[in-house]
Amino acid sequence: MDCREVLTTVVVNIASKEDYQLFLSFNPAINIHELEQLYDLVGWVRRPPRKVQLAINNSFLILTLYLEKQGYRELVGFARAISDHAFNATIWDMAIHPDFQHQGLGSILMRKIIQELRYVEIDSITLFADSQSIRFYSKLGFIVDPLNIKGMFWYPQ
Amino acid sequence: MDCREVLTTVVVNIASKEDYQLFLSFNPAINIHELEQLYDLVGWVRRPPRKVQLAINNSFLILTLYLEKQGYRELVGFARAISDHAFNATIWDMAIHPDFQHQGLGSILMRKIIQELRYVEIDSITLFADSQSIRFYSKLGFIVDPLNIKGMFWYPQ
Repeated sequence: MDCREVLTTVVVNIASKEDYQLFLSFNPAINIHELEQLYDLVGWVRRPPRKVQLAINNSFLILTLYLEKQGYRELVGFARAISDHAFNATIWDMAIHPDFQHQGLGSILMRKIIQELRYVEIDSITLFADSQSIRFYSKLGFIVDPLNIKGMFWYPQ
Repeated sequence: MDCREVLTTVVVNIASKEDYQLFLSFNPAINIHELEQLYDLVGWVRRPPRKVQLAINNSFLILTLYLEKQGYRELVGFARAISDHAFNATIWDMAIHPDFQHQGLGSILMRKIIQELRYVEIDSITLFADSQSIRFYSKLGFIVDPLNIKGMFWYPQ
């Protein structure tokens, strides 16, 4: 699939300067190796590409942020949501390229995801945030432990 | 679809007494009205059947617990999981009929879900627990806020 073609049809132009453009795009045809590079940059553990592709294929929503500069295109932001398409969606793997952090792009990406999930009438959006990220998500309207409901995790022993 | 037929192929017989049997079954062909009756019994808010069906269709895993007594079959337990089929699964809507609570059936149902998710190599199983349920899930190995990772919720304003 020609990614440029996909981008021109679903793209939302969120920023434009003289020498580069940023594109927000619902594009599930993401290049897994490009995604791995982004994960490396934000310091996440590498995961088997086969499993990453499987997770992408079975996510309800994939949102990407691309930088385009002098004909060169680079993935600088990513998030995905798993959902039952009806009541619940959980956002995973939100990442912004370190060079583009603290410029409001994470908020734009998250607001777009919330907007899209609300559009399909999903009322409960959840995520799991580390202590560094709680303030960021709180500003977007996410609440920690509402009604004392706690996130719980099970990992293999 | 003949539910009996599905049950005989995928059923796990977890308890058997002289006059009744309990069947644990991975059976997505669940009767939505029967599920609503179970939700009513545990005091949950009614939800539009169309959306419940959509959520069932888009869940990765549906686990049901049926009582069979003198040819009569009743849904007495339910849980479902949403997943990306690779890394993460979140368990939702776990319910046990009030007459069958505190007999270890919830644990059997949850252990079966964990076993199934582990079988397909999903390592991170999450859920959201109210304060009454935390002890129950802790006994099954679920941990509240590991590494200070917090569950966060977004609801429409």
